[in-house]
Amino acid sequence: MRVAFQGEPGAYSEAAAMKLRAGAVGIPCPSFELVFDAVKRGDAGCGILPIENSVTGSIHRHYDLLLEHDLPIIGEVELKVEHALLALPGVTMAEIRRIYSHPQALAQCERFLHGLAGVDVIASYDTAGSAKMILEGKVRDAAAIASERAAELCHLSVLRAGVQDYDTNITRFLLLARGAAPIGPPDKTTIVFTLRDQPGALYKALSVFALRDIDLAKLESRPIPGRPWDYLFYADLNIDRADLRCARALVHLAEFAGSLTTLGSYPRWKTSS
Amino acid sequence: MRVAFQGEPGAYSEAAAMKLRAGAVGIPCPSFELVFDAVKRGDAGCGILPIENSVTGSIHRHYDLLLEHDLPIIGEVELKVEHALLALPGVTMAEIRRIYSHPQALAQCERFLHGLAGVDVIASYDTAGSAKMILEGKVRDAAAIASERAAELCHLSVLRAGVQDYDTNITRFLLLARGAAPIGPPDKTTIVFTLRDQPGALYKALSVFALRDIDLAKLESRPIPGRPWDYLFYADLNIDRADLRCARALVHLAEFAGSLTTLGSYPRWKTSS
Repeated sequence: MRVAFQGEPGAYSEAAAMKLRAGAVGIPCPSFELVFDAVKRGDAGCGILPIENSVTGSIHRHYDLLLEHDLPIIGEVELKVEHALLALPGVTMAEIRRIYSHPQALAQCERFLHGLAGVDVIASYDTAGSAKMILEGKVRDAAAIASERAAELCHLSVLRAGVQDYDTNITRFLLLARGAAPIGPPDKTTIVFTLRDQPGALYKALSVFALRDIDLAKLESRPIPGRPWDYLFYADLNIDRADLRCARALVHLAEFAGSLTTLGSYPRWKTSS
Repeated sequence: MRVAFQGEPGAYSEAAAMKLRAGAVGIPCPSFELVFDAVKRGDAGCGILPIENSVTGSIHRHYDLLLEHDLPIIGEVELKVEHALLALPGVTMAEIRRIYSHPQALAQCERFLHGLAGVDVIASYDTAGSAKMILEGKVRDAAAIASERAAELCHLSVLRAGVQDYDTNITRFLLLARGAAPIGPPDKTTIVFTLRDQPGALYKALSVFALRDIDLAKLESRPIPGRPWDYLFYADLNIDRADLRCARALVHLAEFAGSLTTLGSYPRWKTSS
Protein backbone atom coordinates (compact mmCIF):
# COMPACT_ATOMS: atom_id res chain seq x y z
CA MET A 1 0.00 0.00 0.00
CA ARG A 2 1.46 3.36 -1.09
CA VAL A 3 0.42 6.26 1.17
CA ALA A 4 1.03 9.85 0.04
CA PHE A 5 2.02 12.22 2.88
CA GLN A 6 3.09 15.85 3.10
CA GLY A 7 6.72 16.44 3.96
CA GLU A 8 9.97 14.52 3.90
CA PRO A 9 10.79 11.08 5.36
CA GLY A 10 10.67 11.41 9.15
CA ALA A 11 7.54 13.64 9.05
CA TYR A 12 4.81 12.92 11.60
CA SER A 13 2.33 12.21 8.79
CA GLU A 14 4.58 9.38 7.64
CA ALA A 15 4.70 7.94 11.18
CA ALA A 16 0.88 8.13 11.34
CA ALA A 17 0.59 6.28 8.00
CA MET A 18 2.92 3.52 9.29
CA LYS A 19 0.86 3.21 12.48
CA LEU A 20 -2.32 2.75 10.46
CA ARG A 21 -0.89 0.53 7.71
CA ALA A 22 2.03 -1.65 8.80
CA GLY A 23 4.41 -2.06 5.86
CA ALA A 24 2.98 0.93 4.03
CA VAL A 25 5.30 2.70 1.59
CA GLY A 26 5.29 6.46 2.18
CA ILE A 27 5.22 8.77 -0.86
CA PRO A 28 6.59 12.20 0.20
CA CYS A 29 4.80 15.22 -1.30
CA PRO A 30 5.86 18.90 -1.02
CA SER A 31 2.31 20.11 -0.21
CA PHE A 32 -1.05 18.82 0.95
CA GLU A 33 -2.55 19.75 -2.44
CA LEU A 34 -0.03 17.35 -4.02
CA VAL A 35 -1.05 14.60 -1.56
CA PHE A 36 -4.59 14.88 -2.94
CA ASP A 37 -3.25 14.97 -6.52
CA ALA A 38 -1.09 11.85 -5.96
CA VAL A 39 -4.13 9.88 -4.79
CA LYS A 40 -6.38 11.18 -7.57
CA ARG A 41 -3.79 10.30 -10.25
CA GLY A 42 -3.35 6.83 -8.74
CA ASP A 43 0.34 7.37 -7.80
CA ALA A 44 -0.69 6.44 -4.24
CA GLY A 45 -3.49 4.19 -3.00
CA CYS A 46 -4.33 6.64 -0.25
CA GLY A 47 -3.24 9.86 1.38
CA ILE A 48 -2.90 10.97 4.98
CA LEU A 49 -3.99 14.36 6.35
CA PRO A 50 -3.53 15.76 9.90
CA ILE A 51 -6.87 17.30 10.90
CA GLU A 52 -6.75 18.16 14.62
CA ASN A 53 -4.26 18.54 17.45
CA SER A 54 -5.20 18.18 21.09
CA VAL A 55 -3.46 21.46 22.03
CA THR A 56 -3.78 23.77 19.01
CA GLY A 57 -7.17 22.50 17.80
CA SER A 58 -8.46 21.87 14.29
CA ILE A 59 -6.27 22.49 11.28
CA HIS A 60 -8.77 24.70 9.49
CA ARG A 61 -7.07 24.83 6.12
CA HIS A 62 -7.29 21.03 5.95
CA TYR A 63 -11.04 21.15 6.47
CA ASP A 64 -11.10 23.45 3.43
CA LEU A 65 -9.08 20.87 1.45
CA LEU A 66 -11.50 18.04 2.37
CA LEU A 67 -14.29 20.06 0.82
CA GLU A 68 -12.33 21.23 -2.25
CA HIS A 69 -11.20 17.72 -3.19
CA ASP A 70 -13.54 14.81 -3.60
CA LEU A 71 -11.62 12.08 -1.72
CA PRO A 72 -13.59 10.11 0.89
CA ILE A 73 -12.25 9.55 4.41
CA ILE A 74 -11.71 5.80 4.93
CA GLY A 75 -9.97 5.79 8.34
CA GLU A 76 -8.40 7.81 11.14
CA VAL A 77 -5.43 7.44 13.49
CA GLU A 78 -4.04 9.30 16.51
CA LEU A 79 -0.31 9.91 17.02
CA LYS A 80 1.39 11.25 20.13
CA VAL A 81 3.67 13.99 18.82
CA GLU A 82 6.96 14.60 20.64
CA HIS A 83 9.02 17.42 19.18
CA ALA A 84 12.80 17.73 19.46
CA LEU A 85 15.12 20.62 18.61
CA LEU A 86 17.66 19.35 16.06
CA ALA A 87 20.96 20.84 14.90
CA LEU A 88 24.22 19.80 13.22
CA PRO A 89 26.43 17.67 15.50
CA GLY A 90 28.63 19.83 17.74
CA VAL A 91 26.43 22.92 17.51
CA THR A 92 25.39 24.35 20.90
CA MET A 93 22.19 26.10 21.96
CA ALA A 94 24.04 29.43 22.24
CA GLU A 95 24.93 29.33 18.52
CA ILE A 96 21.29 29.07 17.35
CA ARG A 97 19.92 32.23 15.69
CA ARG A 98 17.04 30.73 13.67
CA ILE A 99 14.57 27.90 14.29
CA TYR A 100 12.69 26.36 11.36
CA SER A 101 9.60 24.19 11.43
CA HIS A 102 6.05 23.73 10.17
CA PRO A 103 3.64 26.39 11.58
CA GLN A 104 1.65 23.69 13.45
CA ALA A 105 4.79 22.41 15.20
CA LEU A 106 5.82 25.99 16.05
CA ALA A 107 2.36 26.58 17.58
CA GLN A 108 2.70 23.41 19.69
CA CYS A 109 6.06 24.67 21.06
CA GLU A 110 4.94 28.30 21.59
CA ARG A 111 6.01 28.57 25.23
CA PHE A 112 9.40 27.01 24.57
CA LEU A 113 10.01 29.41 21.66
CA HIS A 114 8.85 32.45 23.66
CA GLY A 115 11.50 31.62 26.25
CA LEU A 116 14.30 32.03 23.70
CA ALA A 117 15.80 35.47 23.10
CA GLY A 118 17.43 36.67 19.89
CA VAL A 119 16.16 33.76 17.79
CA ASP A 120 14.13 34.16 14.55
CA VAL A 121 11.30 31.63 14.30
CA ILE A 122 10.78 30.68 10.65
CA ALA A 123 7.74 28.88 9.23
CA SER A 124 8.72 26.20 6.74
CA TYR A 125 6.71 23.66 4.75
CA ASP A 126 7.65 20.63 6.87
CA THR A 127 9.23 19.50 10.16
CA ALA A 128 11.49 16.82 8.67
CA GLY A 129 12.08 19.04 5.63
CA SER A 130 13.52 21.70 7.95
CA ALA A 131 15.93 19.13 9.38
CA LYS A 132 16.95 18.09 5.86
CA MET A 133 17.51 21.72 4.87
CA ILE A 134 19.90 22.21 7.84
CA LEU A 135 21.83 19.06 6.92
CA GLU A 136 22.10 19.88 3.21
CA GLY A 137 22.97 23.53 3.75
CA LYS A 138 25.38 22.64 6.62
CA VAL A 139 23.69 25.54 8.48
CA ARG A 140 25.40 25.94 11.86
CA ASP A 141 23.36 28.84 13.31
CA ALA A 142 19.93 27.24 12.79
CA ALA A 143 17.90 24.42 14.34
CA ALA A 144 14.75 22.56 13.31
CA ILE A 145 11.80 21.37 15.37
CA ALA A 146 11.04 17.84 14.17
CA SER A 147 10.82 14.21 15.32
CA GLU A 148 13.75 12.21 16.70
CA ARG A 149 13.21 9.94 13.69
CA ALA A 150 14.01 12.95 11.46
CA ALA A 151 17.22 13.46 13.49
CA GLU A 152 18.28 9.88 12.74
CA LEU A 153 17.47 10.16 9.03
CA CYS A 154 19.28 13.51 8.69
CA HIS A 155 22.22 12.65 11.01
CA LEU A 156 21.42 15.63 13.23
CA SER A 157 21.88 15.88 17.01
CA VAL A 158 19.03 16.35 19.45
CA LEU A 159 19.80 19.68 21.17
CA ARG A 160 16.68 19.45 23.33
CA ALA A 161 14.05 16.67 23.49
CA GLY A 162 10.37 17.12 24.36
CA VAL A 163 10.09 20.82 23.43
CA GLN A 164 6.28 20.62 22.96
CA ASP A 165 4.36 22.75 25.51
CA TYR A 166 2.12 19.90 26.68
CA ASP A 167 3.07 16.31 27.32
CA THR A 168 -0.27 15.08 25.95
CA ASN A 169 0.25 16.50 22.45
CA ILE A 170 -1.76 14.25 20.16
CA THR A 171 -2.57 14.75 16.48
CA ARG A 172 -5.47 13.05 14.72
CA PHE A 173 -4.94 12.13 11.06
CA LEU A 174 -7.44 11.10 8.37
CA LEU A 175 -6.78 8.45 5.72
CA LEU A 176 -8.24 9.38 2.31
CA ALA A 177 -8.74 7.20 -0.76
CA ARG A 178 -10.67 7.15 -4.00
CA GLY A 179 -13.02 4.23 -4.54
CA ALA A 180 -11.60 2.21 -1.62
CA ALA A 181 -13.62 0.60 1.17
CA PRO A 182 -13.23 1.94 4.74
CA ILE A 183 -10.38 0.19 6.58
CA GLY A 184 -12.87 -1.58 8.90
CA PRO A 185 -16.56 -1.55 9.84
CA PRO A 186 -17.55 2.16 9.83
CA ASP A 187 -18.90 3.66 13.05
CA LYS A 188 -18.08 7.35 12.44
CA THR A 189 -19.33 9.73 9.73
CA THR A 190 -18.03 13.19 8.83
CA ILE A 191 -20.38 15.68 7.18
CA VAL A 192 -20.19 19.36 6.20
CA PHE A 193 -23.21 21.64 5.92
CA THR A 194 -24.30 25.27 5.70
CA LEU A 195 -27.31 26.86 7.38
CA ARG A 196 -29.54 29.79 6.53
CA ASP A 197 -29.03 32.74 8.88
CA GLN A 198 -32.08 32.20 11.12
CA PRO A 199 -32.40 32.15 14.91
CA GLY A 200 -32.10 28.59 16.18
CA ALA A 201 -30.74 27.25 12.87
CA LEU A 202 -27.83 25.37 14.49
CA TYR A 203 -30.10 24.04 17.24
CA LYS A 204 -32.46 22.65 14.60
CA ALA A 205 -29.53 21.08 12.75
CA LEU A 206 -28.31 19.32 15.90
CA SER A 207 -31.86 18.19 16.71
CA VAL A 208 -31.89 15.83 13.70
CA PHE A 209 -29.16 13.86 15.49
CA ALA A 210 -30.24 14.34 19.13
CA LEU A 211 -33.81 13.24 18.36
CA ARG A 212 -32.40 9.98 16.96
CA ASP A 213 -29.86 9.46 19.80
CA ILE A 214 -26.93 9.95 17.44
CA ASP A 215 -23.81 11.11 19.34
CA LEU A 216 -22.07 14.21 17.95
CA ALA A 217 -18.33 13.67 18.49
CA LYS A 218 -17.20 17.06 17.19
CA LEU A 219 -18.60 20.25 15.69
CA GLU A 220 -16.37 22.73 13.91
CA SER A 221 -17.34 26.03 12.32
CA ARG A 222 -15.28 27.55 9.52
CA PRO A 223 -15.82 30.91 7.80
CA ILE A 224 -16.65 30.78 4.09
CA PRO A 225 -13.84 32.81 2.44
CA GLY A 226 -15.19 35.92 0.75
CA ARG A 227 -18.48 35.73 2.69
CA PRO A 228 -17.77 37.43 6.05
CA TRP A 229 -19.42 35.79 9.09
CA ASP A 230 -21.05 33.04 6.99
CA TYR A 231 -19.99 29.60 8.23
CA LEU A 232 -19.57 26.02 7.13
CA PHE A 233 -20.17 23.45 9.87
CA TYR A 234 -18.16 20.23 9.98
CA ALA A 235 -19.62 17.51 12.21
CA ASP A 236 -18.35 14.08 13.26
CA LEU A 237 -21.15 11.63 14.13
CA ASN A 238 -20.52 8.39 16.03
CA ILE A 239 -22.53 6.24 13.62
CA ASP A 240 -22.19 4.54 10.23
CA ARG A 241 -23.83 6.49 7.39
CA ALA A 242 -25.45 3.23 6.27
CA ASP A 243 -27.28 2.95 9.60
CA LEU A 244 -30.94 3.80 8.96
CA ARG A 245 -30.97 6.33 11.84
CA CYS A 246 -28.07 8.20 10.23
CA ALA A 247 -29.56 8.04 6.74
CA ARG A 248 -32.86 9.43 8.05
CA ALA A 249 -31.12 12.16 10.06
CA LEU A 250 -29.22 13.31 6.97
CA VAL A 251 -32.42 13.41 4.88
CA HIS A 252 -34.00 15.44 7.69
CA LEU A 253 -31.02 17.85 7.82
CA ALA A 254 -31.12 18.28 4.03
CA GLU A 255 -34.73 19.56 4.37
CA PHE A 256 -33.45 22.87 5.75
CA ALA A 257 -29.64 22.96 5.34
CA GLY A 258 -28.30 25.29 2.64
CA SER A 259 -25.95 22.49 1.53
CA LEU A 260 -24.96 19.08 2.89
CA THR A 261 -22.06 16.80 1.90
CA THR A 262 -20.89 13.53 3.45
CA LEU A 263 -17.08 13.36 3.53
CA GLY A 264 -16.84 9.71 4.56
CA SER A 265 -17.89 6.91 6.90
CA TYR A 266 -15.04 5.02 8.57
CA PRO A 267 -13.99 3.16 11.76
CA ARG A 268 -13.21 5.27 14.83
CA TRP A 269 -9.63 4.99 16.03
CA LYS A 270 -9.48 2.83 19.17
CA THR A 271 -6.72 4.18 21.42
CA SER A 272 -5.96 0.68 22.69
CA SER A 273 -5.18 -0.62 19.19
CA MET B 1 -8.72 57.24 26.65
CA ARG B 2 -5.53 55.16 26.53
CA VAL B 3 -5.94 51.87 24.61
CA ALA B 4 -3.27 49.16 24.89
CA PHE B 5 -2.68 47.25 21.64
CA GLN B 6 -0.24 44.57 20.52
CA GLY B 7 2.40 45.68 18.05
CA GLU B 8 3.98 48.90 16.89
CA PRO B 9 2.30 52.12 15.70
CA GLY B 10 0.67 51.33 12.36
CA ALA B 11 -0.59 47.91 13.56
CA TYR B 12 -4.14 46.94 12.60
CA SER B 13 -5.10 46.70 16.28
CA GLU B 14 -4.22 50.38 16.66
CA ALA B 15 -6.40 51.28 13.65
CA ALA B 16 -9.27 49.28 15.18
CA ALA B 17 -8.88 51.13 18.49
CA MET B 18 -8.99 54.50 16.67
CA LYS B 19 -12.14 53.42 14.80
CA LEU B 20 -13.86 52.54 18.08
CA ARG B 21 -12.58 55.46 20.14
CA ALA B 22 -11.90 58.63 18.13
CA GLY B 23 -8.98 60.46 19.73
CA ALA B 24 -7.81 57.40 21.63
CA VAL B 25 -4.12 57.26 22.52
CA GLY B 26 -2.61 53.91 21.53
CA ILE B 27 -0.21 52.22 23.96
CA PRO B 28 1.99 49.77 21.98
CA CYS B 29 2.73 46.44 23.73
CA PRO B 30 5.15 43.71 22.55
CA SER B 31 2.69 40.86 23.26
CA PHE B 32 -1.01 40.26 23.90
CA GLU B 33 -0.17 39.12 27.44
CA LEU B 34 1.32 42.59 28.03
CA VAL B 35 -1.87 44.22 26.65
CA PHE B 36 -3.81 42.46 29.43
CA ASP B 37 -1.14 43.44 31.98
CA ALA B 38 -1.23 47.12 30.92
CA VAL B 39 -4.99 47.24 31.48
CA LYS B 40 -4.81 45.36 34.79
CA ARG B 41 -2.07 47.67 36.09
CA GLY B 42 -4.07 50.72 34.99
CA ASP B 43 -1.46 51.91 32.45
CA ALA B 44 -4.27 51.83 29.88
CA GLY B 45 -8.02 52.30 30.33
CA CYS B 46 -8.73 49.44 27.95
CA GLY B 47 -7.09 46.95 25.63
CA ILE B 48 -7.94 45.73 22.13
CA LEU B 49 -7.76 42.11 20.99
CA PRO B 50 -8.34 40.69 17.47
CA ILE B 51 -10.59 37.64 17.87
CA GLU B 52 -11.76 36.52 14.43
CA ASN B 53 -10.94 37.05 10.77
CA SER B 54 -13.47 36.47 8.00
CA VAL B 55 -11.02 34.35 5.97
CA THR B 56 -8.80 32.53 8.48
CA GLY B 57 -11.42 32.15 11.24
CA SER B 58 -11.14 32.50 15.00
CA ILE B 59 -7.84 33.35 16.63
CA HIS B 60 -7.89 30.44 19.04
CA ARG B 61 -5.03 31.53 21.25
CA HIS B 62 -6.91 34.76 21.95
CA TYR B 63 -9.94 32.83 23.17
CA ASP B 64 -7.53 31.15 25.62
CA LEU B 65 -6.34 34.59 26.79
CA LEU B 66 -9.90 35.80 27.40
CA LEU B 67 -10.39 32.90 29.78
CA GLU B 68 -6.96 33.17 31.48
CA HIS B 69 -7.35 36.86 32.25
CA ASP B 70 -10.32 38.33 34.02
CA LEU B 71 -11.00 41.39 31.83
CA PRO B 72 -14.59 41.87 30.65
CA ILE B 73 -15.43 42.58 27.01
CA ILE B 74 -17.03 46.05 26.76
CA GLY B 75 -17.26 46.49 22.98
CA GLU B 76 -16.37 45.14 19.53
CA VAL B 77 -15.35 46.61 16.17
CA GLU B 78 -14.76 45.32 12.64
CA LEU B 79 -11.88 46.51 10.45
CA LYS B 80 -11.34 45.79 6.76
CA VAL B 81 -7.73 44.63 6.57
CA GLU B 82 -5.75 45.47 3.43
CA HIS B 83 -2.21 44.17 3.45
CA ALA B 84 0.68 45.67 1.47
CA LEU B 85 4.18 44.37 0.81
CA LEU B 86 6.64 46.98 2.10
CA ALA B 87 10.38 47.38 1.46
CA LEU B 88 13.08 50.03 1.64
CA PRO B 89 12.75 52.69 -1.09
CA GLY B 90 14.43 51.60 -4.33
CA VAL B 91 14.33 47.88 -3.53
CA THR B 92 12.69 45.75 -6.26
CA MET B 93 10.63 42.58 -5.99
CA ALA B 94 13.51 40.54 -7.48
CA GLU B 95 15.79 41.48 -4.57
CA ILE B 96 13.43 40.10 -1.89
CA ARG B 97 14.63 36.87 -0.24
CA ARG B 98 12.65 37.05 3.04
CA ILE B 99 9.16 38.26 3.95
CA TYR B 100 8.32 39.04 7.58
CA SER B 101 4.91 39.45 9.17
CA HIS B 102 2.58 38.31 11.93
CA PRO B 103 1.39 34.68 11.41
CA GLN B 104 -2.24 35.86 11.00
CA ALA B 105 -1.25 38.27 8.20
CA LEU B 106 0.84 35.54 6.53
CA ALA B 107 -2.19 33.20 6.66
CA GLN B 108 -4.38 35.87 5.04
CA CYS B 109 -1.85 36.21 2.17
CA GLU B 110 -1.21 32.47 1.73
CA ARG B 111 -1.90 32.33 -2.01
CA PHE B 112 0.21 35.39 -2.73
CA LEU B 113 3.12 33.92 -0.73
CA HIS B 114 2.79 30.48 -2.37
CA GLY B 115 3.22 32.16 -5.73
CA LEU B 116 6.69 33.45 -4.79
CA ALA B 117 9.74 31.22 -5.35
CA GLY B 118 12.98 31.33 -3.37
CA VAL B 119 11.57 33.52 -0.59
CA ASP B 120 11.66 32.57 3.13
CA VAL B 121 8.43 33.44 4.94
CA ILE B 122 9.22 34.43 8.53
CA ALA B 123 6.71 34.72 11.36
CA SER B 124 7.30 37.82 13.47
CA TYR B 125 5.49 39.30 16.44
CA ASP B 126 3.82 42.14 14.54
CA THR B 127 2.99 43.50 11.08
CA ALA B 128 4.10 47.09 11.72
CA GLY B 129 6.97 45.78 13.87
CA SER B 130 8.28 43.88 10.83
CA ALA B 131 8.23 47.12 8.82
CA LYS B 132 10.11 48.91 11.62
CA MET B 133 12.71 46.14 11.77
CA ILE B 134 13.39 46.50 8.02
CA LEU B 135 13.77 50.27 8.38
CA GLU B 136 16.02 50.13 11.43
CA GLY B 137 18.19 47.28 10.12
CA LYS B 138 18.28 48.87 6.61
CA VAL B 139 17.56 45.33 5.35
CA ARG B 140 17.52 45.40 1.54
CA ASP B 141 16.70 41.74 0.80
CA ALA B 142 13.59 41.56 2.99
CA ALA B 143 10.01 42.87 2.87
CA ALA B 144 7.21 43.12 5.42
CA ILE B 145 3.48 42.51 5.06
CA ALA B 146 1.78 45.35 6.92
CA SER B 147 -0.63 48.26 6.46
CA GLU B 148 0.01 51.25 4.18
CA ARG B 149 -0.12 53.31 7.37
CA ALA B 150 2.91 51.34 8.60
CA ALA B 151 4.67 52.19 5.32
CA GLU B 152 4.10 55.91 5.97
CA LEU B 153 5.29 55.73 9.58
CA CYS B 154 8.40 53.70 8.65
CA HIS B 155 9.18 55.57 5.40
CA LEU B 156 9.00 52.35 3.40
CA SER B 157 7.78 51.91 -0.17
CA VAL B 158 4.75 49.86 -1.14
CA LEU B 159 6.13 47.12 -3.43
CA ARG B 160 2.69 45.58 -3.90
CA ALA B 161 -0.69 46.71 -2.52
CA GLY B 162 -3.65 44.46 -1.72
CA VAL B 163 -1.70 41.23 -1.25
CA GLN B 164 -4.45 39.63 0.89
CA ASP B 165 -6.05 36.56 -0.76
CA TYR B 166 -9.64 37.82 -0.45
CA ASP B 167 -10.91 41.33 -0.98
CA THR B 168 -13.39 40.95 1.88
CA ASN B 169 -10.77 40.39 4.56
CA ILE B 170 -12.34 41.65 7.77
CA THR B 171 -11.04 41.26 11.33
CA ARG B 172 -13.27 41.57 14.39
CA PHE B 173 -11.66 43.06 17.52
CA LEU B 174 -12.84 43.07 21.15
CA LEU B 175 -12.40 46.00 23.54
CA LEU B 176 -11.53 44.89 27.09
CA ALA B 177 -11.57 46.91 30.32
CA ARG B 178 -11.59 46.42 34.05
CA GLY B 179 -14.54 47.89 35.92
CA ALA B 180 -15.70 50.01 32.97
CA ALA B 181 -19.25 50.13 31.60
CA PRO B 182 -19.94 48.72 28.11
CA ILE B 183 -19.43 51.37 25.41
CA GLY B 184 -23.18 51.47 24.69
CA PRO B 185 -26.39 49.57 25.49
CA PRO B 186 -25.38 45.87 25.49
CA ASP B 187 -27.12 43.52 23.03
CA LYS B 188 -24.50 40.79 22.75
CA THR B 189 -23.09 38.45 25.41
CA THR B 190 -20.08 36.16 25.19
CA ILE B 191 -19.92 33.05 27.39
CA VAL B 192 -17.60 30.06 27.73
CA PHE B 193 -18.70 26.67 29.04
CA THR B 194 -17.69 23.02 29.29
CA LEU B 195 -19.98 20.00 28.94
CA ARG B 196 -19.88 16.50 30.35
CA ASP B 197 -19.16 13.91 27.65
CA GLN B 198 -22.72 12.66 27.10
CA PRO B 199 -24.69 12.08 23.90
CA GLY B 200 -26.73 15.16 23.07
CA ALA B 201 -24.86 17.38 25.55
CA LEU B 202 -24.27 20.22 23.06
CA TYR B 203 -27.84 19.96 21.79
CA LYS B 204 -29.12 20.37 25.36
CA ALA B 205 -26.81 23.34 25.88
CA LEU B 206 -28.12 25.08 22.75
CA SER B 207 -31.71 24.29 23.76
CA VAL B 208 -31.49 26.68 26.73
CA PHE B 209 -31.15 29.49 24.17
CA ALA B 210 -33.37 28.13 21.38
CA LEU B 211 -36.27 27.49 23.78
CA ARG B 212 -36.10 31.17 24.79
CA ASP B 213 -35.70 32.48 21.20
CA ILE B 214 -32.18 33.74 21.93
CA ASP B 215 -30.13 33.98 18.73
CA LEU B 216 -26.74 32.27 18.80
CA ALA B 217 -24.38 34.45 16.71
CA LYS B 218 -21.34 32.19 16.94
CA LEU B 219 -20.23 28.92 18.50
CA GLU B 220 -16.55 28.04 18.78
CA SER B 221 -15.02 24.87 20.22
CA ARG B 222 -11.49 24.87 21.59
CA PRO B 223 -9.53 21.90 22.96
CA ILE B 224 -8.56 22.06 26.63
CA PRO B 225 -4.73 21.84 26.60
CA GLY B 226 -3.53 18.69 28.33
CA ARG B 227 -6.99 17.06 28.08
CA PRO B 228 -7.15 15.53 24.59
CA TRP B 229 -10.53 15.79 22.82
CA ASP B 230 -12.13 17.65 25.74
CA TYR B 231 -13.52 20.99 24.60
CA LEU B 232 -14.40 24.44 25.82
CA PHE B 233 -17.29 26.07 23.97
CA TYR B 234 -17.35 29.82 23.38
CA ALA B 235 -20.74 31.23 22.38
CA ASP B 236 -21.88 34.70 21.31
CA LEU B 237 -25.55 35.40 22.09
CA ASN B 238 -27.44 38.29 20.53
CA ILE B 239 -28.90 39.50 23.82
CA ASP B 240 -27.94 41.55 26.90
CA ARG B 241 -26.98 39.40 29.90
CA ALA B 242 -29.26 41.62 32.03
CA ASP B 243 -32.29 40.59 29.92
CA LEU B 244 -34.36 38.18 32.00
CA ARG B 245 -34.48 35.63 29.14
CA CYS B 246 -30.67 35.57 29.05
CA ALA B 247 -30.32 35.41 32.83
CA ARG B 248 -32.74 32.46 32.97
CA ALA B 249 -31.03 30.68 30.07
CA LEU B 250 -27.66 30.95 31.83
CA VAL B 251 -29.10 29.59 35.09
CA HIS B 252 -30.61 26.74 33.06
CA LEU B 253 -27.26 26.04 31.32
CA ALA B 254 -25.44 26.06 34.69
CA GLU B 255 -27.71 23.20 35.82
CA PHE B 256 -25.80 20.75 33.64
CA ALA B 257 -22.68 22.53 32.28
CA GLY B 258 -19.35 21.46 33.79
CA SER B 259 -18.39 25.15 34.08
CA LEU B 260 -19.86 28.43 32.82
CA THR B 261 -18.29 31.91 32.69
CA THR B 262 -19.66 35.13 31.19
CA LEU B 263 -16.89 37.08 29.45
CA GLY B 264 -18.90 40.25 28.89
CA SER B 265 -22.05 41.91 27.63
CA TYR B 266 -21.55 44.71 25.11
CA PRO B 267 -23.07 46.45 22.06
CA ARG B 268 -22.84 44.63 18.75
CA TRP B 269 -20.80 46.45 16.11
CA LYS B 270 -23.10 48.03 13.52
CA THR B 271 -21.39 47.93 10.13
CA SER B 272 -22.98 51.21 9.07
CA SER B 273 -21.47 53.11 12.01
